[in-house]
Amino acid sequence: MEMKLAFVGMGNVARAFARMLCERQDDLARDHGFRFRTTAISTNSHGSILSTDRIDLIEAAGRMERGESLVGLAGCEAVTDTFSLIERCDADILFETSPLNPVDGEPAASYIRRALERRINVITANKGPVAFRYRELKRVARERGVSFRFEGTVMDGAPVFNMVETCLPAARVLGFEGILNSTTNIILTGMEEGRSFEECLLAAQRAGIAEANADYDIDGWDAAMKAVALANVLMDAEIDPRGIEPKGIRAVSSDDIRAAAQRGGVIRLVARGDRVSDEIIISVAPEEVMKDSPLGSVRGSSNLLKIKTDLMGEIAVLETDPGVRQTAYALLSDMLTVFN
Amino acid sequence: MEMKLAFVGMGNVARAFARMLCERQDDLARDHGFRFRTTAISTNSHGSILSTDRIDLIEAAGRMERGESLVGLAGCEAVTDTFSLIERCDADILFETSPLNPVDGEPAASYIRRALERRINVITANKGPVAFRYRELKRVARERGVSFRFEGTVMDGAPVFNMVETCLPAARVLGFEGILNSTTNIILTGMEEGRSFEECLLAAQRAGIAEANADYDIDGWDAAMKAVALANVLMDAEIDPRGIEPKGIRAVSSDDIRAAAQRGGVIRLVARGDRVSDEIIISVAPEEVMKDSPLGSVRGSSNLLKIKTDLMGEIAVLETDPGVRQTAYALLSDMLTVFN
Repeated sequence: MEMKLAFVGMGNVARAFARMLCERQDDLARDHGFRFRTTAISTNSHGSILSTDRIDLIEAAGRMERGESLVGLAGCEAVTDTFSLIERCDADILFETSPLNPVDGEPAASYIRRALERRINVITANKGPVAFRYRELKRVARERGVSFRFEGTVMDGAPVFNMVETCLPAARVLGFEGILNSTTNIILTGMEEGRSFEECLLAAQRAGIAEANADYDIDGWDAAMKAVALANVLMDAEIDPRGIEPKGIRAVSSDDIRAAAQRGGVIRLVARGDRVSDEIIISVAPEEVMKDSPLGSVRGSSNLLKIKTDLMGEIAVLETDPGVRQTAYALLSDMLTVFN
Repeated sequence: MEMKLAFVGMGNVARAFARMLCERQDDLARDHGFRFRTTAISTNSHGSILSTDRIDLIEAAGRMERGESLVGLAGCEAVTDTFSLIERCDADILFETSPLNPVDGEPAASYIRRALERRINVITANKGPVAFRYRELKRVARERGVSFRFEGTVMDGAPVFNMVETCLPAARVLGFEGILNSTTNIILTGMEEGRSFEECLLAAQRAGIAEANADYDIDGWDAAMKAVALANVLMDAEIDPRGIEPKGIRAVSSDDIRAAAQRGGVIRLVARGDRVSDEIIISVAPEEVMKDSPLGSVRGSSNLLKIKTDLMGEIAVLETDPGVRQTAYALLSDMLTVFN
């Protein structure tokens, strides 16, 4: 059976995923019986197209990278907006990787809802819909008998949501702590080596990890959104991201970092989720941790998530130096989970 | 549907598992639809019993802890040896936790083989059969349409084998490195704090982590057996444990540890598996690593395994301060995987 794929958003992550898919198509067919064709692509600035046959993914990615429109690709019909594309596409799985809207997760959340309602499985790497609308989207997916998966929203393709779901059955998540934002960790660990905040931020931007406007990372919002997603999914919380007050790293000075070093410590932006009586409390703030502790050992763009459980005690997942390929892999991994 | 459970070996791990099962039976029924009854228990020194109805697991564990025989438990028939028990039991899942035989994995490997041949799913926490006979046992399980699972053989219930299988689909494991033996790590990290080798070993023995004869841990054999299991399962290697020459920690002196500390380093017993051309090479040896690296941050009985992959880069799993409950959880986790 051939799976029909649709893409909403075709940025770096989706294009890296498209290349991974094409690169590995023989392995996927041989080892997993997975065959695919692409039937729809929606982009913000390169047009949106539908096909009743198949869209050449590599050609589409190439056009976008040359600054060309997708409209005009052989055998494709142009569509004017993403909602009509979702309404009309013939797809088994929709990959939603449109840009994050930190205010309410829209329009991505509505795209996802509509696709699920049409009984299309949805895989997203977009934190917004998971942080703001997890329960609703999960419910719609269940009612329609399709999957809603989002491994790539926290720690890229490192197993987090899928690991708890499939490898920690019957265990209850009691809490978590983690370093979940790469930009702030690059800055904090760079400052330990004597570089300035601005210098480190610039390096993170040049490496393609931080956005041109990195406030969202620096002020702790990216980590907070991930913490909400973790709490709502893994701990069955109902936290509204609008109620969170993260503390970012703007107030951390070189003096603070030197003072911590004298005590054998380092400063890390730590996201926490804890069950306190019957409530689940989220916090994001810079903390001093021991340099030779697991959290302290996480340097540069690496991430770490500790999960405390009742039956299995405490385990952690560490992701070393992730890049766009690791986020692309999250889509691949979710895709095979949906398919199996 | 009620699953019929059989136990070969009823030591600390199996008894902790039995208690976990009974403690959680309502949750397991409600959340997973899992119901069970025990139909067979085989032990080395407390007799072996079969039942056509159900064996009271808690009563059986209690008898063993009071030094009493299982023979005579209400509604049970005594059996003289484990092979006849496996031959005659009416079971869906057999839990094999008999003591490790480091020379050839016997008789556990033959117990497992016979159970699989009888189309009984097998779950083991015993490294021997996995290190020595993985391919054969996997093949028999596949031929008979049952499962052979062994999450508890490396890092207790922390997701290792199950994680790679279910959460890293299509990714190829290129290599691994890890701290896989708790006894040696307790000794090495204790010596960093100025205690002697003997003092630390005694503490590990008192905590129930090291055996009375801890040579197998200290000389690197436990870590080597785990490394072979990892290589054979995750990297499709065909390594015979008899060909491995681990280096243990016997030659590590307090002077070595002080010298490493002066360079910001610590000594850890590191197990490695690497693909070198078309061959897979296993090594186990003490290594100096940076104190503030992920490997260096692993202290006491904690374990860490880094896995290098093609599609997902490098990730690691850390297990903090495991105890017998964590190994018991491995059996529970494998049981629900088999059941689903």
